[in-house]
Amino acid sequence: MLEPLFKYINDHQNQFVQRLKEWVAIKSDSGDHTKWGQVETMLNMTAELIQKMGGKVELADSGTHQLPSGETVSLPPVILGEFTKDPEKATLCIYGHVDVQPAMMEDGWTTDPFNLTEIRGNLYGRGATDNKGPVLAWLHAVESYQATNTEIPVNIKLIIEGLEEVGSYGLLKLVKEKKDSFFADVDFIVISDNVWATTSPALTYGTRGSSYFFVEVSGPKLDMHSGVYGGSIHEPMSDLIALLGSLLDHTGKIQVPGLSDDVTPLTEEEKKLYENIKFDLEEMKNAVGVKQFLQDTKEDVLMARWRYPSLSIHGIQGAFSEPGSKTIIPRKVTGKFSVRQVPNMDPQDVERKVKEHLEQVFSTQNSPNRLKVTATVSAKPWLANLGDSQYIAGQKAVKDVFGVEPELIREGSTIPIAQNLQEETGKSVMMLPIGAHDDGEHSQNEKISRYNYIAGTKLFAAYFYELSLIK
Amino acid sequence: MLEPLFKYINDHQNQFVQRLKEWVAIKSDSGDHTKWGQVETMLNMTAELIQKMGGKVELADSGTHQLPSGETVSLPPVILGEFTKDPEKATLCIYGHVDVQPAMMEDGWTTDPFNLTEIRGNLYGRGATDNKGPVLAWLHAVESYQATNTEIPVNIKLIIEGLEEVGSYGLLKLVKEKKDSFFADVDFIVISDNVWATTSPALTYGTRGSSYFFVEVSGPKLDMHSGVYGGSIHEPMSDLIALLGSLLDHTGKIQVPGLSDDVTPLTEEEKKLYENIKFDLEEMKNAVGVKQFLQDTKEDVLMARWRYPSLSIHGIQGAFSEPGSKTIIPRKVTGKFSVRQVPNMDPQDVERKVKEHLEQVFSTQNSPNRLKVTATVSAKPWLANLGDSQYIAGQKAVKDVFGVEPELIREGSTIPIAQNLQEETGKSVMMLPIGAHDDGEHSQNEKISRYNYIAGTKLFAAYFYELSLIK
Repeated sequence: MLEPLFKYINDHQNQFVQRLKEWVAIKSDSGDHTKWGQVETMLNMTAELIQKMGGKVELADSGTHQLPSGETVSLPPVILGEFTKDPEKATLCIYGHVDVQPAMMEDGWTTDPFNLTEIRGNLYGRGATDNKGPVLAWLHAVESYQATNTEIPVNIKLIIEGLEEVGSYGLLKLVKEKKDSFFADVDFIVISDNVWATTSPALTYGTRGSSYFFVEVSGPKLDMHSGVYGGSIHEPMSDLIALLGSLLDHTGKIQVPGLSDDVTPLTEEEKKLYENIKFDLEEMKNAVGVKQFLQDTKEDVLMARWRYPSLSIHGIQGAFSEPGSKTIIPRKVTGKFSVRQVPNMDPQDVERKVKEHLEQVFSTQNSPNRLKVTATVSAKPWLANLGDSQYIAGQKAVKDVFGVEPELIREGSTIPIAQNLQEETGKSVMMLPIGAHDDGEHSQNEKISRYNYIAGTKLFAAYFYELSLIK
Repeated sequence: MLEPLFKYINDHQNQFVQRLKEWVAIKSDSGDHTKWGQVETMLNMTAELIQKMGGKVELADSGTHQLPSGETVSLPPVILGEFTKDPEKATLCIYGHVDVQPAMMEDGWTTDPFNLTEIRGNLYGRGATDNKGPVLAWLHAVESYQATNTEIPVNIKLIIEGLEEVGSYGLLKLVKEKKDSFFADVDFIVISDNVWATTSPALTYGTRGSSYFFVEVSGPKLDMHSGVYGGSIHEPMSDLIALLGSLLDHTGKIQVPGLSDDVTPLTEEEKKLYENIKFDLEEMKNAVGVKQFLQDTKEDVLMARWRYPSLSIHGIQGAFSEPGSKTIIPRKVTGKFSVRQVPNMDPQDVERKVKEHLEQVFSTQNSPNRLKVTATVSAKPWLANLGDSQYIAGQKAVKDVFGVEPELIREGSTIPIAQNLQEETGKSVMMLPIGAHDDGEHSQNEKISRYNYIAGTKLFAAYFYELSLIK
């Protein structure tokens, strides 16, 4: 049954790579709302491809969003797609996104991030693995059925957005609105927007949540000259450094009081899952390029990444950030950090505790400056039931293509839509990654290997088949 | 004697403003070495004007400079200018610079920083007061003598550079080379590259020194995704925040051990100088837009700015600094701060103590990351002798133009050339500012008032005259 599909996919891999090259060339970076025109271009290109394949497409209005500046902006639409409907078959809804993280040569890319470049079997480019490659692999899996005149054994629906990298503004509201229409006949929801944990294929059953914090300290009317005023001014930058410095100790432990109180205790059963994962700590150190992690054992590192909260400081806006030297006292600086939450932490509660902590620290500074803390993108952590039937189908499909059992893993990063879709629709949600652990999502030199891209397309084709056998 | 000069200057003020507009239009920002072409354009324009006025110009080679990156770059030339020489007259050498600080509308300018714009008597534009306006005022003072057929009573030499804002690379070496040629017959050196301390005209007899520090912390090979790796990695950014946080306490006191040991003790005589200055603390709070300074009295604020050291944190390179949100763990971040030194601190000693302190703090972090501390632009503090004859001439010239005695002030910011010229040439150096205290050098909306620009031109014309009477 699967052989002709796999052969078609093998035979057409160069076309599939060429199409990914065309998609990567669109700079659909959603990080800056003034550039959302490119995101819309990418969404339109995706919608056209689905329509060309015979799918129906609705470009659903996802409303507006208020930026931290107070400005309200219209959001790019969300693609709701559907291939021919057979009421006898199970219905699978595939989620994906076609926006990307920012990327510039100056950040240290070896090749142009928006020109997909193949080097020794790897396809380098922004979005190659996160998430343009996987979205195309789904569409190419459908194409393999169509081109070989094989009936697709499940009904396929698609929900594809363009704002995942900034927190899927508007998507949750849309899902709520479409619960009783688009989602009414959906049986399973599948997401391929993460990577394997090791060199082995994996199914993902949980993700951490995330809250992004903006800590603004403002003081003088204007930027000041540090020679003229240095030593006489409460500098917003030193206030901010003290605030950011109060968040973590040098072991990576979060210093916000009570933040980790609600973390689910570890059971013996869960502990075993980590022991079974073929994660090589030394190999990972080499891949990442660090001499040591904050933890010493494989299990502790995996748990720190997947089932415990973390806090990372990303940067400062408003201070001097260019190369060279500038003797400035910035008038207003905004520190940016995020907290990854885990079951059973509540984003509202996290936000309150972080704000209270920062306000308390700031009060000890005796500063005449103004503090403003805001938080966005509060995504809850997600945890699925490993007994759901699509997890069984997923395991079989992995075996069909790779000949091994998948690892059952969690993901440290946030796919808010997994939690949102599960909570709002009540359907089973699974994550079925095809990227490798060293793909470098969000990094310089992001890639997907040609092998994973093509094997992933086969995996998705096999998954349609295995899912139809179970329902 | 001075009346025809003053009348000429008054009558030609619109031309003088127009010429400043042409100079401000050249984006001679020296902060980024890849843009030094504009600095050279500005130097050529200056040289042409001097030549048109009958001056001789040498575009002196100032050698090369090694950037923090290790790259070696050729430096723009330095203008050595000279008007007709009469061995019977005293020779005055004027120092100025025609490069500027960076400026962008996005930083919060009300008008285009490179289009000089007059609003209610103020001329807004980058370089208006620092230092294009004063350099032109010197040349226009010469022009007023020439145009009124008045013999200039002193010989005029000029040294004009294009790298002051990044630390006058190459200038010290050039001054050493020219000590026995260009500087041999110079009697006095005058610099107008600072501003009054209050609303009263001033002579400046001291400046603070400066050392600029780059604190680089590097870890992983690439930027990492904070979802995937957050909680397991020693993040370079949290190491850096801890390092920067160790530099100051919340009262602005420098926490580097021993840094202030060599500060000259305050004498009763010096204390009186501060009491005499008509500095209004409340007015300054309003101008700067702060509710309080770190000190409570006028004298303490002035001393904090002029005769005590300070440390300001300017920013971080390599972290996320754009608007919006990005969930990145930066692989390499460079914190930037500077220390203003005062007599009798030694820059070499400051550098050593800061490095030792940072290394000590970093060692307590137990981090596998790499720390690299480099320092540039080590300028020594400068203090002149108030009894020098050009200070007497300066006081008389201020009285000629403004009808009041000047305040005798120091300057918190660094003009390394004052110290360098005094030390290398052994000549008397004076600073004769024409900008007002609220001109906003290095800030958004930098300006010089039309009044100060024109009165400053008269002051310089009067100074030539008074100086000739004393010698």
